[in-house]
Amino acid sequence: MTQTIAEMLEERINLTSSPAERSQCKYLLNGPPDSQCGIKTNQFNGIPSFIKSSLFAAETDVLGFDHLTEQSTKSRTKSQSKHDTGNEETILGETQEEEDEILPRKDYESLDYDKCINEPYLEVLETLDNKRVRRYELVKWILVFCIGVCTGLVGLFIDYFVHLFSDLKYQIIEKSVEDCSERGCLALSLLELLAFNMGFIFLASLFVLIEPVAAGSGIPEIKCYLNGVKIPGIVRLRTLVCKAVGVLFCVAGGLFVGKEGPMIHSGAVVGAGLPQFQSITFRKIQFNFPYFRSDRDKRDFVSAGAAAGVAAAFGAPIGGTLFSLEEGSSFWNQALTWKVLFCSMSATFTLNLFRSGIRYGSWGSFQLPGLLNFGEFKCADGDKKCHLWTAVDLAFFVIMGVIGGLLGALFNCLNRRLVKYRMRNVHPKAKFVRVLESLLVAMVTTMVVFIASMTLGECRDIPSQMHNTTLQLSERNINSGIKTFFCPNQTYNDMATLFFNPQETAILQLFHQDGTFSPVTLSIFFVLYFILACWTYGVSVPSGLFVPSILCGAAYGRLVANILKTFIGMTHIYSGTFALVGAAAFLGGVVRMTISLTVILIESTNEITYGLPIMITLMVAKWTGDFFNKGIYDLHVGLRGVPLLEWETEAEMDKLTASDIMEPNLTYVYPHTRIQSLVSILRTTAHHAYPVVTENRGNEKEFMKGNILISNNIKFKKSSILTRAGEQHKRSQSMKSYPSSELRNMCDELVTTEVAENGEDMLQQMLERRHAPYPNLYPDQSPSEEWTMEERFRPLTFHGIILRSQLVTLLVRGVCYSETHSSSTQPRLSYSEMTEDYPRYPDVHDLDLTLLNPRMIVDITPYMNPCPYTVSPNTHVSQVFNLFRTMGLRHLTVVNAVGEIVGIITRHNLSHDFLLMKLRQHNMTM
Amino acid sequence: MTQTIAEMLEERINLTSSPAERSQCKYLLNGPPDSQCGIKTNQFNGIPSFIKSSLFAAETDVLGFDHLTEQSTKSRTKSQSKHDTGNEETILGETQEEEDEILPRKDYESLDYDKCINEPYLEVLETLDNKRVRRYELVKWILVFCIGVCTGLVGLFIDYFVHLFSDLKYQIIEKSVEDCSERGCLALSLLELLAFNMGFIFLASLFVLIEPVAAGSGIPEIKCYLNGVKIPGIVRLRTLVCKAVGVLFCVAGGLFVGKEGPMIHSGAVVGAGLPQFQSITFRKIQFNFPYFRSDRDKRDFVSAGAAAGVAAAFGAPIGGTLFSLEEGSSFWNQALTWKVLFCSMSATFTLNLFRSGIRYGSWGSFQLPGLLNFGEFKCADGDKKCHLWTAVDLAFFVIMGVIGGLLGALFNCLNRRLVKYRMRNVHPKAKFVRVLESLLVAMVTTMVVFIASMTLGECRDIPSQMHNTTLQLSERNINSGIKTFFCPNQTYNDMATLFFNPQETAILQLFHQDGTFSPVTLSIFFVLYFILACWTYGVSVPSGLFVPSILCGAAYGRLVANILKTFIGMTHIYSGTFALVGAAAFLGGVVRMTISLTVILIESTNEITYGLPIMITLMVAKWTGDFFNKGIYDLHVGLRGVPLLEWETEAEMDKLTASDIMEPNLTYVYPHTRIQSLVSILRTTAHHAYPVVTENRGNEKEFMKGNILISNNIKFKKSSILTRAGEQHKRSQSMKSYPSSELRNMCDELVTTEVAENGEDMLQQMLERRHAPYPNLYPDQSPSEEWTMEERFRPLTFHGIILRSQLVTLLVRGVCYSETHSSSTQPRLSYSEMTEDYPRYPDVHDLDLTLLNPRMIVDITPYMNPCPYTVSPNTHVSQVFNLFRTMGLRHLTVVNAVGEIVGIITRHNLSHDFLLMKLRQHNMTM
Repeated sequence: MTQTIAEMLEERINLTSSPAERSQCKYLLNGPPDSQCGIKTNQFNGIPSFIKSSLFAAETDVLGFDHLTEQSTKSRTKSQSKHDTGNEETILGETQEEEDEILPRKDYESLDYDKCINEPYLEVLETLDNKRVRRYELVKWILVFCIGVCTGLVGLFIDYFVHLFSDLKYQIIEKSVEDCSERGCLALSLLELLAFNMGFIFLASLFVLIEPVAAGSGIPEIKCYLNGVKIPGIVRLRTLVCKAVGVLFCVAGGLFVGKEGPMIHSGAVVGAGLPQFQSITFRKIQFNFPYFRSDRDKRDFVSAGAAAGVAAAFGAPIGGTLFSLEEGSSFWNQALTWKVLFCSMSATFTLNLFRSGIRYGSWGSFQLPGLLNFGEFKCADGDKKCHLWTAVDLAFFVIMGVIGGLLGALFNCLNRRLVKYRMRNVHPKAKFVRVLESLLVAMVTTMVVFIASMTLGECRDIPSQMHNTTLQLSERNINSGIKTFFCPNQTYNDMATLFFNPQETAILQLFHQDGTFSPVTLSIFFVLYFILACWTYGVSVPSGLFVPSILCGAAYGRLVANILKTFIGMTHIYSGTFALVGAAAFLGGVVRMTISLTVILIESTNEITYGLPIMITLMVAKWTGDFFNKGIYDLHVGLRGVPLLEWETEAEMDKLTASDIMEPNLTYVYPHTRIQSLVSILRTTAHHAYPVVTENRGNEKEFMKGNILISNNIKFKKSSILTRAGEQHKRSQSMKSYPSSELRNMCDELVTTEVAENGEDMLQQMLERRHAPYPNLYPDQSPSEEWTMEERFRPLTFHGIILRSQLVTLLVRGVCYSETHSSSTQPRLSYSEMTEDYPRYPDVHDLDLTLLNPRMIVDITPYMNPCPYTVSPNTHVSQVFNLFRTMGLRHLTVVNAVGEIVGIITRHNLSHDFLLMKLRQHNMTM
Repeated sequence: MTQTIAEMLEERINLTSSPAERSQCKYLLNGPPDSQCGIKTNQFNGIPSFIKSSLFAAETDVLGFDHLTEQSTKSRTKSQSKHDTGNEETILGETQEEEDEILPRKDYESLDYDKCINEPYLEVLETLDNKRVRRYELVKWILVFCIGVCTGLVGLFIDYFVHLFSDLKYQIIEKSVEDCSERGCLALSLLELLAFNMGFIFLASLFVLIEPVAAGSGIPEIKCYLNGVKIPGIVRLRTLVCKAVGVLFCVAGGLFVGKEGPMIHSGAVVGAGLPQFQSITFRKIQFNFPYFRSDRDKRDFVSAGAAAGVAAAFGAPIGGTLFSLEEGSSFWNQALTWKVLFCSMSATFTLNLFRSGIRYGSWGSFQLPGLLNFGEFKCADGDKKCHLWTAVDLAFFVIMGVIGGLLGALFNCLNRRLVKYRMRNVHPKAKFVRVLESLLVAMVTTMVVFIASMTLGECRDIPSQMHNTTLQLSERNINSGIKTFFCPNQTYNDMATLFFNPQETAILQLFHQDGTFSPVTLSIFFVLYFILACWTYGVSVPSGLFVPSILCGAAYGRLVANILKTFIGMTHIYSGTFALVGAAAFLGGVVRMTISLTVILIESTNEITYGLPIMITLMVAKWTGDFFNKGIYDLHVGLRGVPLLEWETEAEMDKLTASDIMEPNLTYVYPHTRIQSLVSILRTTAHHAYPVVTENRGNEKEFMKGNILISNNIKFKKSSILTRAGEQHKRSQSMKSYPSSELRNMCDELVTTEVAENGEDMLQQMLERRHAPYPNLYPDQSPSEEWTMEERFRPLTFHGIILRSQLVTLLVRGVCYSETHSSSTQPRLSYSEMTEDYPRYPDVHDLDLTLLNPRMIVDITPYMNPCPYTVSPNTHVSQVFNLFRTMGLRHLTVVNAVGEIVGIITRHNLSHDFLLMKLRQHNMTM
């Protein structure tokens, strides 16, 4: 008893273990740090009385480690290079395709949307009157409003500085070009442009060096988060800053990237961070705000933030809400959805309020569209023959959708190869190599833009409409974008107009400029832009994909309209519509989003009648693209190895049942467990949750006499099993205690007479008889190596599930009772004490073991989740999947017809690859 | 054995039963036909060997009867009058508030969204390759397109005839008024108008007499259907015809009703009916189209149809999708949502295509808004100071929202009292009384309209803008609505303009007519309209509520704008915006819809910048109104006694657990059951599902020898229980059968050696030892009246659930095996055979018992749902509710920690009233 746990663990640290066990361990941990595996391996031949749970680990929660979270940004690079070395064999013994080993898999933690209701929560519940609930709701409304406002401000910040820097740049360069075109010193202008662009990109890269997860668009990461996977560092304040500042330099630097994805990401970070009132970047500043300390609340707020990001970026609050629904994927929650919509509206409102004031000088006018706006599509007044689109056009839209889908698939395929190449050849190298790559991209882009603008453009007449006196705001915008490089009066250089402008202006040109761009110009522009955008997406800078895709697609659509007008003679078509449809087709082919993208585009055009064309185009583009590969975001998610859950399983998968896919090797705890056992289990396994079980053993009465631990466990088991007779008894008792109708009384009498006859003790007798008959051991007894398989896989009654974080909290806070006392002497933790450390719970390895008495007993029953969702082993995969995904679960226990736990299903067991492997196994054994 | 079941049942039909049992039966059946109750009562003292399941019925599925569906339209009226007679006591012995007894409760069946996967389905599954799945998907897409098109056509039909009849009417009357205003024969004009209106309303009432469920807006009914409650007759073809024709006469007849609600209902009927390719109205016409024969598919299509209805009515496809999501309430299903959106788009498209051709003569132009459109809100060109709304206006909008909420609550309160009065005093009387009431409403409305128009209007200047040459389509519409009764040139009669126009025109007037209406006129109009609309909604004619609410609210908003402009001096405000916000406030106060209404209004205005004002107004109006009562649709649902499930339970309810609310009295069946037992159970209970259980009895081996039934049951039980050891064994076996990696091999060896040591038989031994020890009886033994409570509530292991319809189908199709044969000789039914009779399965009382051999045994295991969702008795109500509602369940079994069924939860157990009662009980016993 004087020996501390630390000493006991140290003693056995160097014992040998069998190769089988070691390899098992390796299979299970498959990547995580060796030290963890080492401790684990030493467990099996350890001192018998110490290690109770010798069964191998496996219900691992996608096998992540809490403590990995903090160091993951460093460790990822390391493990990437490690995995890069050889063709490691997979579980099935097949060599997987090479792309699958590039990134470490199973490095991610799951989020839990399920709410655990047990004793600490019950205290909260007791005090929950309607007034409090309403106050709590009000706080939520205020918070989502704040999230919306902050997201809007972030958007404003990005937009303001992008405009500031680009205007500055273009002014200087244009002046230089004008001067030089006379003096023939264009090389100087190019150098100036290069200096500007590369300077900006260098700054952007530096910010990404500070926080590597700030690279890219952020949408894949947010998608993962909303899907229920925690990606380390993705919702931190530092990420927000790096992303926001990075993207503005990146856009100002003339790269072919958009600011929409990063804005959505920023919104999500705001949503995650704001309601917590704390940040690890500013660790010192601590408000006492103990609410919303759960994955569930945080995920809700992240949904709202992401929606606000979309709303700010596109001026599409409904689209934003649908985006967060489409990606958030949990069940349709009306209250939440309305909050999300409100949040989006607030973001749009804030952004428009400030933009109207700052950029246009008319504070409080809200008729401005979002940051990215497509202008007003309308026929010229008085033109009766003009239709935005007709039924005949729909056929062309379908064909454009098919081509758009093909182009998108090509884009995705090329980008995937590039990213893979980059991961294998750039990421393992020193970090400045990434900066060099960014600079290279910036240089090439700049030179292409400059040379194409100077040499490849055609001079075309400026349309007469521009001399109109009653110019609308957007029209003025359009016409101010026209570039006249090297062109005579009243004509303009069409290539320069497209290339030598901010991308938003170029989009407006393609949508609304009536002066046609020449087909050659459009083709060249499309090809160059396609290649450069594809190369750029994935470079280590914050980079969105929406605007490049829209611009690229608009060029393609405008090209189609040109061809139709010129060669087919369909002069009455409205080229703006074709450009818009082309943009939708290409964007749909690349990102493969469905409802939300439709709505975002409809809202951006502010023209409800475009609904059908946009939707049909997107649908066709998605279907076409899906023949070849997945959407770009899903591809990037796949390359990162995140176990994302799809919408539904394939119909084929229903050949499998829960028992086929579950993990049957369990590490479990008992309702009453000694501290030494808990520490041992926590230190030697990596799971995030442990089922709480009791054993079905005989001679329970004898055991009860000997040992308080055993007797407590048996007592708990008995008390926790509700029987029909017991329930009936209880009901008939409670019926009598208050006035009831005649009808009910009759029924009571019927029952209670019988109860009375049989005596009070009947219930107790029944319980005892039912649980007597298993002839076997009970906890706290030593499991020996000679255990038969029967003993090892002995039946265990399932009572609940407890999280690692909860167990560690109990240990840290010293919740336990001594053997000589009753379990009621154990100190109680309240709900806020249990969740105080969220989201970074202490690590069990940081525990000071000398402070703990290993023989003390912990009663974990008040803190476990006593009624998690369970499924029967026969449940088909579609149903399991549906339950798991819809309810946002982290662990789903599989319990057989007699209440014994037989396995656990986590996200990992439902990932597409895993199911496919199991299906192949199933088909082989059939 | 020669005695047939029919004879056996007849023998006992007159046996007496104890009062207790009879009253229990009464409590349970509480309304349904007496004959059913009679049979039930006779069961308890019946011949022992015959009735096995003597436990009282109670997991009733909201206690509906399949066969009630067909006669319900008749029986409802009857039972309404029956219930009207006295103050019946409720379960708790309290006299409920009087409104609650008006309508019969528990008259409705539930729908089931859960998919049962067992053997008949597995056959389908085996043949399910990707090609088939894709074809199936394609059929679905085609079907939703057809639903959209048909819904659009129905909308077109209604719209066309409404316009035809109203135009005719107004032309004649206006001519008459103009003539008469000179000659002083206005009474004649009034008589003409009365003749028109009352004629139309009479026709509308007649259609409702044919199909009474066609009365009202239909939205409450669709809400119930999407919530999972089947309301008899609501999705029948006859209902569609009566509703569509009825509403057009009703609107043409000048009642203050809208056509939007009925159009949504029509869409839902189209959605439910079209994919079935059959109708009981045209019973003779039968296509061989055996797909989509399940509640699940039907409900999906109804969602799509309802959304299409909204889309057609408001030109709001996204709003329609959100409407069906908000009311449909099941989990967010991306594939379904996209189909719904497509369906909505198709409806809008079809409607606009035909309208553009028929009404405006330009086929193929799609720039027309929906049937109800709010025109274009925009500032006059060149007016720089004009803003649609500013930040300052928001404060007024909030106040308007509060007042709108109050007005809405008043409207709902008055309407509720009216409906209750009507139910008590009009509905019990002969049917023509309802027609008379409709005619009375029509007469009063007509007279009010006429007299107000003639006497109360003011003459006001026609705004100069109307002389503009470049009139937009909508502007022309607006100005054509101006009425100049009794007014000099260049002025118009403002009251007549509002009252003497179709409602859509009046709305446009209020939104866009710059010539202000006088505050007095607006006030009078508002008050009169409010009262009449309130009286009208609930009369026995098809009647929507949207348009009247919008018109009423617009008048209120316009009034506010007038007051602000005239008295406060805020001349720069845009009155159209205030009218719109007023409409939103009043509509929000009445219907209390949230997201969908916001989006519908935004889409109707086609102006994204109105999002925030509309949303804030709706939010405030809803909150204000919710202080006083529920939304009008919910009130009507409540008056019908439909057990609708809300969004979520109140936080307080979490004090209850599943065991508190479940129904512990179960009627169950065994895996292998004799036909006589099945028939008896089916005929003497009214449940829609029966749990399949086995008993935990001892001496199973002995029993097995004696009786094939018992031994089959025991065999099934043993085979169905998967154990960890068994699973491990199976896995290690299957591992060996195909190439596996080294890692896995190691692990296999570890396990398989142990298995080998213990011998093959170990698994079997374990299974036997685990199930041997219960000392008790087994099925097919006679339950005697002397059963102790212990015996009556003996533990039952839960294996699955089987629906009444499935059992009846098995009996009708003769699926059984004889005692002397093995159960494998039983004929097998395929999936399509099982679902052929959907949705009207044969009734067990129509079964020809002489054809059945009562001693034959039915093996129901292949047809039951082997893995329904279950919860533990400790699960808190919020979680139970969440699971039940999200997954769209019909039955949720409560299973304790050792796998015994302890109760069943149905919709009834989760209804708000029931929970409230249980909470009161809980608080009393605490």
